[in-house]
Amino acid sequence: MTTFRLTLEYDGANFDGWQVQAAGSRTIQGCLEDAVERVCGQRVRVEGSGRTDAGVHALGQVASLRVESRLDAPALLRALNGVLPADVAVLGAAVAAGDFHARHDACAKLYSYRIWNGATRSPLRAARSHWVAPALDLTAMRAAALNFCGRHDFASLQAAGSDVVQTERTLHRLELAGESRGEIEIQVEGDGFLRHMVRNLTGTLIEVGLGRRAADSIPELLERRDRRLAGPTAPAQGLTLIWVSY
Amino acid sequence: MTTFRLTLEYDGANFDGWQVQAAGSRTIQGCLEDAVERVCGQRVRVEGSGRTDAGVHALGQVASLRVESRLDAPALLRALNGVLPADVAVLGAAVAAGDFHARHDACAKLYSYRIWNGATRSPLRAARSHWVAPALDLTAMRAAALNFCGRHDFASLQAAGSDVVQTERTLHRLELAGESRGEIEIQVEGDGFLRHMVRNLTGTLIEVGLGRRAADSIPELLERRDRRLAGPTAPAQGLTLIWVSY
Repeated sequence: MTTFRLTLEYDGANFDGWQVQAAGSRTIQGCLEDAVERVCGQRVRVEGSGRTDAGVHALGQVASLRVESRLDAPALLRALNGVLPADVAVLGAAVAAGDFHARHDACAKLYSYRIWNGATRSPLRAARSHWVAPALDLTAMRAAALNFCGRHDFASLQAAGSDVVQTERTLHRLELAGESRGEIEIQVEGDGFLRHMVRNLTGTLIEVGLGRRAADSIPELLERRDRRLAGPTAPAQGLTLIWVSY
Repeated sequence: MTTFRLTLEYDGANFDGWQVQAAGSRTIQGCLEDAVERVCGQRVRVEGSGRTDAGVHALGQVASLRVESRLDAPALLRALNGVLPADVAVLGAAVAAGDFHARHDACAKLYSYRIWNGATRSPLRAARSHWVAPALDLTAMRAAALNFCGRHDFASLQAAGSDVVQTERTLHRLELAGESRGEIEIQVEGDGFLRHMVRNLTGTLIEVGLGRRAADSIPELLERRDRRLAGPTAPAQGLTLIWVSY
């Protein structure tokens, strides 16, 4: 058995997210397991660093798998890309330590969330960003963002109904690039993320940018640990997993 | 009657190009004429600055129309965006001089052609760029590009079968940004373009970048006025019309 580490890019638009679900759903994990089975003749589990939601993209998702194969890593990469559908590709493949696990061993991740802040909708940006028409106050959003950085209990930003108990996470970096009335990119780097955390954080920052919420209200929001107090979940198509570090 | 000038953005992927054709084809011009008819109650011709091919995108196409309407320009913009399909939008609308014509009056245009020069295909870039796997020699491509700048007869780069007789055009600028093994953008600004000219020029530059054609072979290529001597037509999805000036 060989353990491989794969780096993956995918366009999430036509996937029901990462994780294999009920029959009939189209998932990235399912496509990869199908591809590995075709190439290696063996059905094995492909573990991702995390379960991206339906519609979320990745430029550098990492996955691990253990499989009996005569292929070396470059040959596995070529073979998988030959059978995978057009909206998912293997960018890199390497032999990893036998016990390497893409989720358990992940140290940090970077996500990018894109907002199109133009006055009119943008057909060329629609598939990869969230359109917010009123001009956003980036200065207020940047001030609010500082309050999320560092180690905090992010229970207020966790998807309603999640049963994760340990909700403390550390955000190493939360930056807003771009400008009002243009393309805005929020980059969030942290040691781990709760379900919907980046999208709920983005929805909350947008409320600040629209003047509906004060930048200095964030510490209390975090303290209250109540999902109902945060902003709405920003739509999936704006979110891309950029890299995972180990 | 009022003459309006519209600035348009569209994702060309699901259009059979700009120009209204046989029944059953889906064109940007057709969608706009339908939208104007719904909003103004009158079927009129919408003229574009040029006829983008099937699959070509626009970030700043310009169109003109003359119509009987009680709407002012901002109201027309909002009304059209309310009825247009998601892959085309009006970014700007203004009342123009009565005889303004988007094609006849155009002075210059800027096109962008994007190449993804990664070793593996890129699902997130596929819809908007052309994948070239071998590393491209950008230095040679830039040297070749200089030979296209200025006033030349571009008959060699015109789509086979075109009946345009006056094939001289002036390229004001032809720049390659980016780097080998990454995203490359070719920007071409000129006073006018023959059918397929930017895509044939790009296909020719790619041959130079792959070492299949010498950078200094371009003057002779232009002199010969023979389409068969130029490179293949680069695929439509990499091309975007950025702006038109008047």
